[in-house]
Amino acid sequence: MTTGHRKAARKGEPARTTAVAGPPPDKKWIIGVDLGGTNIVVGVLPMDGGDGTVLAEQNVPTEAVRGAKFVVDRIVALVQEAKRQVLSQYGGRESDFAGVGIGSPGPLDRATGTVIATPNLGWRNFPLRDLIANAVGLPATLDNDANCATYGEWWLGAGRNVDYLVGLTLGTGIGGGIVINGEILHGANDAAGEIGHMSIDSNGRKCKCGNYGCIEAYASGPAIALRAVEGIESGVESLLPALVSGRLDEITAATVYEAVVLGDQYANDVMRETAKMLGAGIGNIIHILNPEMVVIAGGVTKAGDHLFVPLRAEVRRRAFKVAQEACQIVPAQLPGLAGVIGAAAVFKKETYGVV
Amino acid sequence: MTTGHRKAARKGEPARTTAVAGPPPDKKWIIGVDLGGTNIVVGVLPMDGGDGTVLAEQNVPTEAVRGAKFVVDRIVALVQEAKRQVLSQYGGRESDFAGVGIGSPGPLDRATGTVIATPNLGWRNFPLRDLIANAVGLPATLDNDANCATYGEWWLGAGRNVDYLVGLTLGTGIGGGIVINGEILHGANDAAGEIGHMSIDSNGRKCKCGNYGCIEAYASGPAIALRAVEGIESGVESLLPALVSGRLDEITAATVYEAVVLGDQYANDVMRETAKMLGAGIGNIIHILNPEMVVIAGGVTKAGDHLFVPLRAEVRRRAFKVAQEACQIVPAQLPGLAGVIGAAAVFKKETYGVV
Repeated sequence: MTTGHRKAARKGEPARTTAVAGPPPDKKWIIGVDLGGTNIVVGVLPMDGGDGTVLAEQNVPTEAVRGAKFVVDRIVALVQEAKRQVLSQYGGRESDFAGVGIGSPGPLDRATGTVIATPNLGWRNFPLRDLIANAVGLPATLDNDANCATYGEWWLGAGRNVDYLVGLTLGTGIGGGIVINGEILHGANDAAGEIGHMSIDSNGRKCKCGNYGCIEAYASGPAIALRAVEGIESGVESLLPALVSGRLDEITAATVYEAVVLGDQYANDVMRETAKMLGAGIGNIIHILNPEMVVIAGGVTKAGDHLFVPLRAEVRRRAFKVAQEACQIVPAQLPGLAGVIGAAAVFKKETYGVV
Repeated sequence: MTTGHRKAARKGEPARTTAVAGPPPDKKWIIGVDLGGTNIVVGVLPMDGGDGTVLAEQNVPTEAVRGAKFVVDRIVALVQEAKRQVLSQYGGRESDFAGVGIGSPGPLDRATGTVIATPNLGWRNFPLRDLIANAVGLPATLDNDANCATYGEWWLGAGRNVDYLVGLTLGTGIGGGIVINGEILHGANDAAGEIGHMSIDSNGRKCKCGNYGCIEAYASGPAIALRAVEGIESGVESLLPALVSGRLDEITAATVYEAVVLGDQYANDVMRETAKMLGAGIGNIIHILNPEMVVIAGGVTKAGDHLFVPLRAEVRRRAFKVAQEACQIVPAQLPGLAGVIGAAAVFKKETYGVV
């Protein structure tokens, strides 16, 4: 985009000094890193994305309690191992690797490659990008993990060829990403896309973030489990207690789904309520962004029609006809690997201008 | 924005067959039309926007009940009159006018210049753009009125030089617009930016649109008046009935503001509640879009600090620190004329690629 009085350099955008014409032919591979509070996933993508298969996939626990240096060393070792496996399998040389795209929980500063704060990892103002780049000896980029997951679905997943794409990842929290015309919408200072913290009930449940009524407070994995347990504690009949041998604190969103499949009415009510809350949030997103597609990732999507049918019905009840008819609401196609794929795509985009 | 696998032509984007290098030197003026349910405003802007003064401003009632042909004829007559006044005052010739930018209530289809439906005007699939263009003998563009208002503030108002701008216009309804890097965010089919219909209470007040808890259902002018009247009818003490000689159906948002200025506690409570609802909505917008600025237009902004102080406090309570610190929340600088100015800016942008 260009405008008559656009600023010379946009805040938060890595400077690009020359026009770019795509990746040079001698660079064959990009390494993607998806750093999470629980696991680190690393893998290699061919420059053109290939068929979307992540090569030399590594997936190990983060063990953040062992400290930042431990985690960085672990990422570096995984990157080296992934490179070694690719070279061993496909031949070639060190210089075939273009660089490393890193996805990390935020907030973060992309321009400096710094993680500003991550409650899950306990880091503050941590120069993650350059620590990894220097240790690996390759250029690197840093972006938000949920942005990367959405960008991965845009590059090689459900959102291919979609110009207005919104992604939601339902997990321990709810991450979001917005991709418009092939670019991640980053906002003024890299904090856009926090769709999980949109409030759909301004006096509703308190969220861990301090706000009230965030969709994360209803539809994240722990929130689904908590809502299920609250009902049981208030005396609702359900198969759920039996599924955890009476240990209610062991109920997870997966347990709720298991009970739904077994025909449990209460678990079905919890799932339907989850779908309605998500539907209200996606209705808002459709009003604001008029996307062509909302792609939903995360364990909860295993519930399939038990989730998507009431969710789509709730969106129909809320969003404008012309906008909802333009918008598909679909499950993700790259479960578990969209983050790695998207991190690699971010590297490609920021380095060569195209994906 | 360009991407490796972007579609050749984006849906809803007017085709541009050649690279553009700004407006030609012989085109000096753009005409802006802001069509509303109540009034039509027409005016002329110099190609470079000048100091933001709208020349030859015309402002007359729409009188939509007299039918679509009447309204189109009225717009055409206003455009001709505005041209005549500019030529009479500044000299020059007919060909100094580049064209007409039209802002209209939506939903609409920009590519064909068609208004799909406007409840306020009673039109369906109405080819507004071409009817005006043909009658005036100038090229024309069509965009949503709230988009135009936000684009006007971006071009020549509060949002100059702002890369991530969100605009809200509080009136009979609540209109919204999103301008990113100098481009209006239109979405998949020109329906983006309907921020007034974001729900902040999914089981809340029913909105005229059919959804529940829309910010429009709390903070539009009629909604503010309705909430005030409800309280009075339930027995709350207030100066409000005296201000309308007991005719409660004559209470408007302006009456509420008048009572606030007179020190009425109840009216102040209504205004504070309005601010909190808007604050919850803007908190959501900050989570989703991370704007640099939210600019608020409309009569309610006359309440000044009575509105903005509690509104900003509510945003602080809800949005992430890093994102709220990046975002100014300010009153509009072009009251009543942002729509005309923005409609002219849309014409310039779509015709010459720059504003």
